[in-house]
Amino acid sequence: MTYRRTAVVGAGLIGGSLALRLRDLGVDVVVVDPDPGTRAAAAAVGLVVAETVPGDRDLVVLAAPLDVIVAALPEVAAAAPDAVLVDVGSVKGTVRDACRAHGLEHRWVGAHPMAGTERSGFAHATASLLVGASWAVTRGAGPVADVVRWVVDTFDATAVVLDTDAHDRAVALVSHAPHVLANALLGVVEDAADPAAAHLAAGSFRDGTRVAGRDPLRTRNMLADNAAALGPVLDDLVVLLQHYRRELDDRAALAERLASVTAGADAVRRPEPGWRPCADLDAALAAPGTTLLRRGPSGLELSR
Amino acid sequence: MTYRRTAVVGAGLIGGSLALRLRDLGVDVVVVDPDPGTRAAAAAVGLVVAETVPGDRDLVVLAAPLDVIVAALPEVAAAAPDAVLVDVGSVKGTVRDACRAHGLEHRWVGAHPMAGTERSGFAHATASLLVGASWAVTRGAGPVADVVRWVVDTFDATAVVLDTDAHDRAVALVSHAPHVLANALLGVVEDAADPAAAHLAAGSFRDGTRVAGRDPLRTRNMLADNAAALGPVLDDLVVLLQHYRRELDDRAALAERLASVTAGADAVRRPEPGWRPCADLDAALAAPGTTLLRRGPSGLELSR
Repeated sequence: MTYRRTAVVGAGLIGGSLALRLRDLGVDVVVVDPDPGTRAAAAAVGLVVAETVPGDRDLVVLAAPLDVIVAALPEVAAAAPDAVLVDVGSVKGTVRDACRAHGLEHRWVGAHPMAGTERSGFAHATASLLVGASWAVTRGAGPVADVVRWVVDTFDATAVVLDTDAHDRAVALVSHAPHVLANALLGVVEDAADPAAAHLAAGSFRDGTRVAGRDPLRTRNMLADNAAALGPVLDDLVVLLQHYRRELDDRAALAERLASVTAGADAVRRPEPGWRPCADLDAALAAPGTTLLRRGPSGLELSR
Repeated sequence: MTYRRTAVVGAGLIGGSLALRLRDLGVDVVVVDPDPGTRAAAAAVGLVVAETVPGDRDLVVLAAPLDVIVAALPEVAAAAPDAVLVDVGSVKGTVRDACRAHGLEHRWVGAHPMAGTERSGFAHATASLLVGASWAVTRGAGPVADVVRWVVDTFDATAVVLDTDAHDRAVALVSHAPHVLANALLGVVEDAADPAAAHLAAGSFRDGTRVAGRDPLRTRNMLADNAAALGPVLDDLVVLLQHYRRELDDRAALAERLASVTAGADAVRRPEPGWRPCADLDAALAAPGTTLLRRGPSGLELSR
């Protein structure tokens, strides 16, 4: 293991699942959460809990809401002075800026497991939730190579290494914009107050709204925290919907637009990384752009 | 059975599934399709096929694309002069107008099974696809009560009886708008050409785009055929997305909007019909608004 003594700050769905995985692997892990009920629930399944971060930790995983992470950074960094700080939130630019402001950039690496459910809280955490997922890892002044090894080895993850701003743009596209569209669709059907609509809803509506109408504050935070990257994507979607709207009366143009979407679908839905052995992780991480890393049968593998 | 000698015109996913169900129930059914390959495939699984509608039919189900239905109406009606005409397409106003133009309104009832897959064609048809689904049935001058009994008894369906225009508005909301949003989302991610986005896509993107990037002509027809009802829904969605976009920088307003969506979600996702016995189907169908009908343990049941 890259890190031997971990603290997980915030035992919600993600932090709780992460702690359960580490416990299952026999790693020394302490769960830190301000909520007595959450600490009790974590202790009840055998996790070690604490109210503050122990000073002997070599890794502190920050799994709290973004505003809590930003507020707690100096205190956590001081409590465990030798620890690497890894946050697992869905937006990275704000955390990088906060680390920079506190002189902690060399101790911080952003990580973001692309997994979750529409539920939240420790009650829904499982040791398997984050295993086998893609994990974004952001490049910066911190120990990126160590954190890449940690996510690959601990979670059987494919690490997607990229710049902080590139991360925030990518998740705006594939996670935050889908949440806006899902809530907009559910909202427009609610507003229509059409007694037939609910009874006629089939698969396209259910799938298109699955992530909508859940914990509104969690969704609000996710969207607002990434406003800088999400705003332009929503602008693009508005323009695109206006095109579709006009082309309802232009069958040739509408067919052309839909055919173009269909033609490009596989590249987005089924990207095919070309894996090859990675002999030098530091050199691989020094290259700009997006780099994928995973553990293959014969060792670390790379795709770019 | 309400009808004893059925013809199904168009053996695609829906028409083929419908014919297979009727065959399994022992109903005399003839499949009419212009494509020799489709007729051969239908014959290969034991269906009776023909190139034209036999004159002895008491029910003709029109399961072809909308433009084919509209073009074929007079010929089909003349070929089977005693048959009730039921179309199973996803848009009803255009069919009603065509029936009216040909003096066939008293012979026509619109039916629309709210089931399907992202696949199309007879090769994907199954006897179970349309069973247990909600079926919209449109009220008009035709024998609505007979068609309600037919869908309830043949497909173990919940019949959602409503006016033609109300049908087209409802499916614009819960079926056609979701298809536009899904294609817009997939398209915006393709256009971004972001190498990280595809690798970071998780559940919200997969669900939000499941129905996108499929058979573009089928989707084009579905959307353009319902332009009159779908246009205003897309207008509403554009306005709504512009609100979300502005509120990315107004956390209180965004939280309020999302909380309102969450508060209204159950009414749309889990409508709870209050079922009661239906003693007089004709009287039930004469009432305005949306009426639900199904077969309960003790007979026909009604919800309004």
